[in-house]
Amino acid sequence: MVISVKLKNENQIEVAVSTTCAEITKKISSGLAKEALAAEINGKVVDITTTVNADCSLNVITFNDEAGKKVLRHTASHVLAQAIKKLYPKVKLAIGPAIENGFYYDVDSDLPFSSDDLGKMETEMKGIIKQNLALERFELPREEALKLVEQLNEPYKAALIKELPDNEPITFYRQGDFIDLCAGPHLPNTGMIKAIKLTSCTGAYWGGDSKNKMLQRIYGTAFTKQSELNAYLTAVEEAKKRDHRKIGKELDLFSIDEYIGQGLILWHPKLSVVREEIEFYWRKEHRRRGYEYIYTPHIGQSNLWETSGHLDHFAEGMYPPMKMAAKDEEENTNYYVKPMSCPFHVRMYKTRPRSYRELPIRWCELGSVYRFEKSGTLHGMLRVRGFTQDDAHIVCTEDQFVNEVNSVLDFALDMNKAFGYDKLNVYLSVRDPQDNEKYLANEPVWQLAESTLEKILSDREIVFKKDIGGAKFYGPAIDLKAVDAMGREWQGTTIQLDMNLPERFGMTYIGSDGKEHTPIMLHRTLLGSMERFVGTLIEHYAGAFPLWLAPVQVKILAISEKNHEYANKVLKILRNEDIRVEIDDRSEKIGYKIREAQLGKVPYMLILGDKEQNENVVAVRNRKNGETIVMSIEEFRSLISGEIFYKR
Amino acid sequence: MVISVKLKNENQIEVAVSTTCAEITKKISSGLAKEALAAEINGKVVDITTTVNADCSLNVITFNDEAGKKVLRHTASHVLAQAIKKLYPKVKLAIGPAIENGFYYDVDSDLPFSSDDLGKMETEMKGIIKQNLALERFELPREEALKLVEQLNEPYKAALIKELPDNEPITFYRQGDFIDLCAGPHLPNTGMIKAIKLTSCTGAYWGGDSKNKMLQRIYGTAFTKQSELNAYLTAVEEAKKRDHRKIGKELDLFSIDEYIGQGLILWHPKLSVVREEIEFYWRKEHRRRGYEYIYTPHIGQSNLWETSGHLDHFAEGMYPPMKMAAKDEEENTNYYVKPMSCPFHVRMYKTRPRSYRELPIRWCELGSVYRFEKSGTLHGMLRVRGFTQDDAHIVCTEDQFVNEVNSVLDFALDMNKAFGYDKLNVYLSVRDPQDNEKYLANEPVWQLAESTLEKILSDREIVFKKDIGGAKFYGPAIDLKAVDAMGREWQGTTIQLDMNLPERFGMTYIGSDGKEHTPIMLHRTLLGSMERFVGTLIEHYAGAFPLWLAPVQVKILAISEKNHEYANKVLKILRNEDIRVEIDDRSEKIGYKIREAQLGKVPYMLILGDKEQNENVVAVRNRKNGETIVMSIEEFRSLISGEIFYKR
Repeated sequence: MVISVKLKNENQIEVAVSTTCAEITKKISSGLAKEALAAEINGKVVDITTTVNADCSLNVITFNDEAGKKVLRHTASHVLAQAIKKLYPKVKLAIGPAIENGFYYDVDSDLPFSSDDLGKMETEMKGIIKQNLALERFELPREEALKLVEQLNEPYKAALIKELPDNEPITFYRQGDFIDLCAGPHLPNTGMIKAIKLTSCTGAYWGGDSKNKMLQRIYGTAFTKQSELNAYLTAVEEAKKRDHRKIGKELDLFSIDEYIGQGLILWHPKLSVVREEIEFYWRKEHRRRGYEYIYTPHIGQSNLWETSGHLDHFAEGMYPPMKMAAKDEEENTNYYVKPMSCPFHVRMYKTRPRSYRELPIRWCELGSVYRFEKSGTLHGMLRVRGFTQDDAHIVCTEDQFVNEVNSVLDFALDMNKAFGYDKLNVYLSVRDPQDNEKYLANEPVWQLAESTLEKILSDREIVFKKDIGGAKFYGPAIDLKAVDAMGREWQGTTIQLDMNLPERFGMTYIGSDGKEHTPIMLHRTLLGSMERFVGTLIEHYAGAFPLWLAPVQVKILAISEKNHEYANKVLKILRNEDIRVEIDDRSEKIGYKIREAQLGKVPYMLILGDKEQNENVVAVRNRKNGETIVMSIEEFRSLISGEIFYKR
Repeated sequence: MVISVKLKNENQIEVAVSTTCAEITKKISSGLAKEALAAEINGKVVDITTTVNADCSLNVITFNDEAGKKVLRHTASHVLAQAIKKLYPKVKLAIGPAIENGFYYDVDSDLPFSSDDLGKMETEMKGIIKQNLALERFELPREEALKLVEQLNEPYKAALIKELPDNEPITFYRQGDFIDLCAGPHLPNTGMIKAIKLTSCTGAYWGGDSKNKMLQRIYGTAFTKQSELNAYLTAVEEAKKRDHRKIGKELDLFSIDEYIGQGLILWHPKLSVVREEIEFYWRKEHRRRGYEYIYTPHIGQSNLWETSGHLDHFAEGMYPPMKMAAKDEEENTNYYVKPMSCPFHVRMYKTRPRSYRELPIRWCELGSVYRFEKSGTLHGMLRVRGFTQDDAHIVCTEDQFVNEVNSVLDFALDMNKAFGYDKLNVYLSVRDPQDNEKYLANEPVWQLAESTLEKILSDREIVFKKDIGGAKFYGPAIDLKAVDAMGREWQGTTIQLDMNLPERFGMTYIGSDGKEHTPIMLHRTLLGSMERFVGTLIEHYAGAFPLWLAPVQVKILAISEKNHEYANKVLKILRNEDIRVEIDDRSEKIGYKIREAQLGKVPYMLILGDKEQNENVVAVRNRKNGETIVMSIEEFRSLISGEIFYKR
């Protein structure tokens, strides 16, 4: 019997029934067959050795696919388990999944493993890989499965089997003399893992529950090429060096104080300069582009949040209410710290009747908002509970809508460029058609909104991905993610259409026809939040901010005490130009002072000794290249003012 | 028998026992005797007719004293009551005290009084004053007092007597045929009231309780000279015109939304421009003067407020807690919205060890704080619940303290001047020695602190008043109150010494001696809060902000449609210089457009017609004098940029 297999490129091929995916792949391309790690039949990832028995769609999975990475690393975790059992037969195995960028295996061992142990395991693993053992899948009835793991003396596996629902098939994978309970899928053989590395060992509770026994979790990663593994390990090292929490401490940039509260950032003076400069620039650009700045409170009564729908849809993300009844019997209401500024902007809109002549209204605000996040999800400045959004709301007519979205896109691209983010990944966040209940039900408006946003991107010839299910409950969005110096993506700009608030709050304007209309409302941020944006900037620049953002732009280093007067003269000249300049007049050696300024990431050092003083010049040392050039004070002033102005 | 009377100027005079204060006053000065309204014996204000019977200190009270104004206006309220009883004998009298700037009398009348009625009362009062009736004080036992008010048919007076404690003497004042229950003191006769005015009539509940009967409250004021009354009434009229709530509505500057919450300000775009300009200037000046800006959160956990002492000393002023237990069982704590930023600054100080080399640290923040105030006390932008303080904390050594206070004083004077406040009233806020429990108990430090602040003011030859009892519980302060165009005082700058937080939080620094020391901490604001400061600015400028603050600096008025292109060209040139310019290209008459721009308080109008267009010039109309001068675009650009730069 012949069956029809539909390929990813929409082509169809005919094969005999019971052909394996591996064989079909060979028919497609011998090159692809070499890279094939698994297959996807009708959307489900399976072993490449699986046979097809009916018409289906088939997608060959390689290491370029997320699923391929997962399969390879899952097999690597089995190889790790096999190695451990060989080296330490008394150890009991728990679970060993693939995770982002790698895998782990949790094992029950009386002693924690040292890095020496990890080295031994790695060597053992490499041996197993070299043997190129085939992985073989088999299924057992529940009783037999339990008997097998009892024989293997693996009590955690027995516990896992007991938790499986009755109708679930119980499968195992065997490689050589090692058998593990596992749903798969896996590589066909261990030899396909070309590069492995065990990275660390930590404690982890069985079942993630602190009431249970503490197990040992061994982390590792695996690749199809040694060069890829090396690149990954280098990137990890680099990311560690660039970690904004590490740099933040070294350069005294920010802190989080458990005494004040988790996820709340204290901006120290140096990082506050960076934020102030960004805010100055942000405000100026907004004025120039026809935005008006507004200020709104940080708290609001419950009826505001009822009308806005936040108490229905967003209560989980809000801090608990401040109950006024306890305070004042006349004022029996609750106040909430704001999780968003939108309802305030909407109420301001409604303070008087609006005419079409006033539209578009573009109101922006650096609004500090507070959202409750579980403490486990918090991460430095990147995932916080209190943050300042660079928020704006645009209220416009239908005719103005496309134009306004385009203007925001222009604005966003310019803004990101100013911070060295030249590469942006663009996403169109639309509904998930599988999950229709999540969204406001107005099908024709949704379709129009999604297609309009899509057309805007297409007309600009912007390459974008669709983020299915990425829409908010109130409308679709365009999201721009900045790609940093490490190649990582950070959500920044979002342009959201709001199909909710204008109706809920009854926003209107009088059109040129003299009648009342409901306006269109856009939410947008360009940077996202000051916290996340500046946190990623620290990592992007590895703490070495460009001149216009640098907390200290110039450090004056006096070679000896004789030069202090001259150093102070230069200081005053620069400070009068609002250049951020500091002086190091300690009686330390000049080499030491240079090293410290370099570590402090100061863009320019002025080294001032007798020679410079006598000739009325400055020796300018550039942080970037370490070169020193002598020039007049006026030349330096002009150079640095120009660089600041042009944000170089 | 002769007794000794100590006068205000420390002189002593001897008089016979039972001499009246009036007679003693005559001995001091016949001029003073004419102005004497009452006397103060050993600190207690009494009728000028009171006799002295033992050694005492005596102070003669005139209309220049607050107490004198009160006595005169209290007597005026009795005159009002007498007039009412004559005109409307059925009316029942309740209470009639002196208040700030006047007096009122609450009476029970079936019908509310019209302004005609008030006119009649005023005429009747003038007659009573002309009769120059003597006021006579007498005391009655409780039973007889009750009998008297029953005869007079005054049930409210009977109720008042019943509320008096047993040991309280019950006194009455009689003038002509009118008797009123009253503790006094009063003028010796009605003729001393030279000028009166009844200003309004409103409803007021008996005892201030809405469950009681609604009475009629008649407001009035009284002076010793008609010219003073006239000046006062003119000032009241002017203040009404300048009321920031009225102007705020007319110019679309701000709103308060009952839906969001009382005392919370929404800053509309136009007023936000004013605030932004002030903040730009404020930040720049702070950087130049060696301050560092910081950002701290708006919420903090209860342990922070426990340590700071706020939950003990300031809980009444705080919004209720956000109870996390309801949210997350792991995080059983309460968060509070911050009423002050100090504890955050202190915790930031403590993030690492500090050396004397780093001091003084000057950290500033435009910190938005929230304080609960009873709704009845709220008043536009001047008394609010949410406000942004222009806060700073200075941490310094003892040696640096005097210098730092002087620098803040310099800064404050410059800052106030920039906003047209050339006249400042200076107060030294010290402890009230009568109320020692209110303050932290460290007598020698208090004495040193108060005398140091006093010496700083004296050394600068600044004239100041002592505000006894004006100190905070944690230390004394210097307060500067700006005097506006209406001659009213507004609290702005405060410089407070904090003897509390450094100890409570264990702030230290390593001195040059290598040992740990506790630093000195100053709190200060220059403007007070953005809300109150900008609110008073609206009144100070009557909405006509100077050029550098004006929301719209230039309005371009095109005479006809033919001139639109030229108008837009001028607009672009000015906008490129970040000048805030708008265009009025409606097809309205030019006179109408000018009137509207004038009402909108726009400093400059450019009137552009064919003539201007052909000659490439602009006709510049100045809001202040209404004059129009023709000049080139470049001349105007240069003129306005200069004025903005110099804040004219």
